[in-house]
Amino acid sequence: MALRTDDHGQAATNGLKEKVLTLDTMNPCVRKVEYAVRGPIVLRALELEQELRQGVKKPFTEVIRANIGDAQAMGQTPITFLRQVLALCVHPDLLNSPDFPDDAKRRAERILQACGGHSLGAYSISSGTQLIREDVARYIERRDGGIPADPNNIFLSTGASDAIVTLLKLLVAGEGRTRTGVLIPIPQYPLYSAALAELSAVQVDYYLDEERAWALDVAELRRALLQARDHCRPRALCIINPGNPTGQVQTRECIEAVIRFAFEEGLFLLADEVLAGAPAGRGRRAAARAPVTHPAVARPPVQVYQDNVYAEGSQFHSFKKVLTEMGPPYAARQELASFHSVSKGYMGECGFRGGYVELVNMDAAVQQQMQKLRSVRLCPPTPGQVLLDVAVSPPAPSDPSFAQFQAEKRAVLAELAAKAKLTEQVFNETPGIRCNPVQGAMYSFPRVQLPPRAVQRAQELGVAPDMFFCLRLLEETGICVVPGSGFGQREGTYHFRMTILPPMEKLRPLLETLSQFHAKFTREYS
Amino acid sequence: MALRTDDHGQAATNGLKEKVLTLDTMNPCVRKVEYAVRGPIVLRALELEQELRQGVKKPFTEVIRANIGDAQAMGQTPITFLRQVLALCVHPDLLNSPDFPDDAKRRAERILQACGGHSLGAYSISSGTQLIREDVARYIERRDGGIPADPNNIFLSTGASDAIVTLLKLLVAGEGRTRTGVLIPIPQYPLYSAALAELSAVQVDYYLDEERAWALDVAELRRALLQARDHCRPRALCIINPGNPTGQVQTRECIEAVIRFAFEEGLFLLADEVLAGAPAGRGRRAAARAPVTHPAVARPPVQVYQDNVYAEGSQFHSFKKVLTEMGPPYAARQELASFHSVSKGYMGECGFRGGYVELVNMDAAVQQQMQKLRSVRLCPPTPGQVLLDVAVSPPAPSDPSFAQFQAEKRAVLAELAAKAKLTEQVFNETPGIRCNPVQGAMYSFPRVQLPPRAVQRAQELGVAPDMFFCLRLLEETGICVVPGSGFGQREGTYHFRMTILPPMEKLRPLLETLSQFHAKFTREYS
Repeated sequence: MALRTDDHGQAATNGLKEKVLTLDTMNPCVRKVEYAVRGPIVLRALELEQELRQGVKKPFTEVIRANIGDAQAMGQTPITFLRQVLALCVHPDLLNSPDFPDDAKRRAERILQACGGHSLGAYSISSGTQLIREDVARYIERRDGGIPADPNNIFLSTGASDAIVTLLKLLVAGEGRTRTGVLIPIPQYPLYSAALAELSAVQVDYYLDEERAWALDVAELRRALLQARDHCRPRALCIINPGNPTGQVQTRECIEAVIRFAFEEGLFLLADEVLAGAPAGRGRRAAARAPVTHPAVARPPVQVYQDNVYAEGSQFHSFKKVLTEMGPPYAARQELASFHSVSKGYMGECGFRGGYVELVNMDAAVQQQMQKLRSVRLCPPTPGQVLLDVAVSPPAPSDPSFAQFQAEKRAVLAELAAKAKLTEQVFNETPGIRCNPVQGAMYSFPRVQLPPRAVQRAQELGVAPDMFFCLRLLEETGICVVPGSGFGQREGTYHFRMTILPPMEKLRPLLETLSQFHAKFTREYS
Repeated sequence: MALRTDDHGQAATNGLKEKVLTLDTMNPCVRKVEYAVRGPIVLRALELEQELRQGVKKPFTEVIRANIGDAQAMGQTPITFLRQVLALCVHPDLLNSPDFPDDAKRRAERILQACGGHSLGAYSISSGTQLIREDVARYIERRDGGIPADPNNIFLSTGASDAIVTLLKLLVAGEGRTRTGVLIPIPQYPLYSAALAELSAVQVDYYLDEERAWALDVAELRRALLQARDHCRPRALCIINPGNPTGQVQTRECIEAVIRFAFEEGLFLLADEVLAGAPAGRGRRAAARAPVTHPAVARPPVQVYQDNVYAEGSQFHSFKKVLTEMGPPYAARQELASFHSVSKGYMGECGFRGGYVELVNMDAAVQQQMQKLRSVRLCPPTPGQVLLDVAVSPPAPSDPSFAQFQAEKRAVLAELAAKAKLTEQVFNETPGIRCNPVQGAMYSFPRVQLPPRAVQRAQELGVAPDMFFCLRLLEETGICVVPGSGFGQREGTYHFRMTILPPMEKLRPLLETLSQFHAKFTREYS
């Protein structure tokens, strides 16, 4: 084999032709992407699982993946009615089966009528099946007390992530100091940092106030904005409400202040409301717990997600509703995109990748551009569209499936509430761990004290101190959680994100193991 | 309402605050994206459908959407076994039903065992369920006569488009004259031009030879490459085989020549094999018709996609197989990504968005980067993964569902073959229309002569001449096809892409209407 060089500068030595695509030649923006929720710690968890299967002895018998909000992977049972309607749509022969309730059949027939060729196998239009967007619009109207929603402003998506990335993509422009900047909360859900890195946009961090239950403070938004204007052009503000990974719920006053701020500063608002509980039943709203000024002191009764009951004076407020009710000049002008999905809440149907975005006050020509951009990817997956449709219009009290649907949903929500309470309680009883109220109902984001020698040891190893803690936790206990550094945190503080989704009989020992491990780890490095 | 101006240069006049996001301020790359398959002509078709529903009188009673390869929207029946397995996975209560065959139940149980929490509602790992990637690997091995395929090199995706865009994204780098260029065929499937525009990569056109049944000529590849090197850095070569919209099938000799060319010139190969027929049954291969030197003269017998029968000496060759069989230095070094989906072929399950890419000789570190990038979007939709699994491992002869599966599949393929033949025949009998053999089994891309006065009139109206023709066709007949300008074509030639998917009883009158319309149009502008 002869040595060769080609005519455009690629080296060829020892007959080994260099690859076209290498770390050095690939898209540098992609290299910068990080995604902790499925990062190195999760890859190590997969390896450990494999080792356990191969019979390797470990100090634990199973890996518990508390790293990702994947309810059904942790044993949460799907809601029967959702799956019945979807099975009927997938295999319409079942419409003749006596094993399915009439309302499930009516729902499936109605959806199939709206599909091309009456089949889920056809593409829908790119923004999603018209009928389903109409149902989503009616859901939003109920949620917001009758404020109109236009199906033409609703785009169904492949999970919420897909829609979020589409909006960010539209917003990115400029170069150097005019490059688009996007304000995101710290801690954040790392989809945002990953998408901004990929799009080569500027991530502008604003910090949530851990001491005030992760409250959002407009003064901090302003600080972040003013500093960012030195090096980029901030054009959008992301709010995650309820917070991910932090789980707090914004007050109405806070949302109003954020809207005024965005309006005055010329920022497009992106409201990630994915964790806003279950899309509510007819006439009801999603609920969440009250933030408290100091979580270790006051703990309001846990009634998370029981969507007709609210903790004292607190509830989920949609940005759309608050914006509209604020009236002029905000209501008719402030640009807003609000995101939701079927992955969380009582549905937990992550694998189907159903979601939507509602656009408010978007420039009509830009919205056409978005329509065009979406059409390149043809359409969101139809099964996710079906589940979304059922989730936004669950059985009515007069429907045969109503009682079972409500019972299943309440059981899921009650268990989540109990697990949220347990998690918060055990963590706050552990010296060196402190946990704000788990209001978002799926995640906890406790702060851990790490002894200086552990921090030093981590630095010697070239890993973040909380990564060091989480890796040791995984290796010694099989518990997989994500270090706070993957979400962002104030310098010198350490956290981890843990879902509260493991079943109660596993969650209790898991929390105790974690608590004991922290004590042991602290002793070891003190 | 007071006049106001903010502090970063946004104008505010008459109290009307400018939007943050306008055509002028949005991502300029997104503005450049075009996607003809769902472009203005399709939007007009939607409007016409609405007008018909509202009772507006038209010279036709329905709009026939022959613009998009959406088999089930045109009445193609889903394959029972695929839907049975998926329904069982969606709603496992059905595993107790006597209405499902045992092999469908076994398949569903096997898949559910491989899912988190034994539920489709859980996320899969980002590259797709391990078991399903193993099944895909075994399918590829059967297809390629035993050449090994590694499940770790297979990434499941949200339709093939998703995987194609991911690969392009990895390849984009550089600025100005070092910007990544990607060679794509003209005519092309406009996903490529759209994705390259969005990624701000350089589209490098190479022309297929219409006179030789859309043959791919290496001399033309070289011409395109050398010209492109003046203004960009070409790093990848896309081949669509079978062609979309052109439907030709590459010969083995052609594929070998392309691989040698790519190797010598340092190009990453992207083989879009989405139209490579049905993933074959056990031990069989996808088939396609022989290209002929002049289609109007020689027409080989139409036995498209009957996957154990090939037209004289012609068949589908996968790039992976040819590459491997070419041995050193190509086999172990040439980088290749090959794409497939469940949207086309006998399945036609577009709405579920199932697909995959197999990577060959990709740099291991880059493949890790791809894994990371994919993980940000969590996972491909699980129902599409299930359908892909069934499609790549259909019932074996000993399975209870074998006979029905084969009968249904053959019926679909036989009808497609008959429709391909009819389409080609009617077009070639029409003066002023000429159509190469419809080998890709779903699309025809006939060339139409347009009279100079029609071309002039179109130019006056500021639209492409074939767009003008297609719009008039739509307004007068309700037939929706896509102008060739949306796919690219040689200057001064005009085409349209029409699917052959309408049911036979509609396709025949459609073709005749189209033929008569062309005659009338030609008279009108002569």
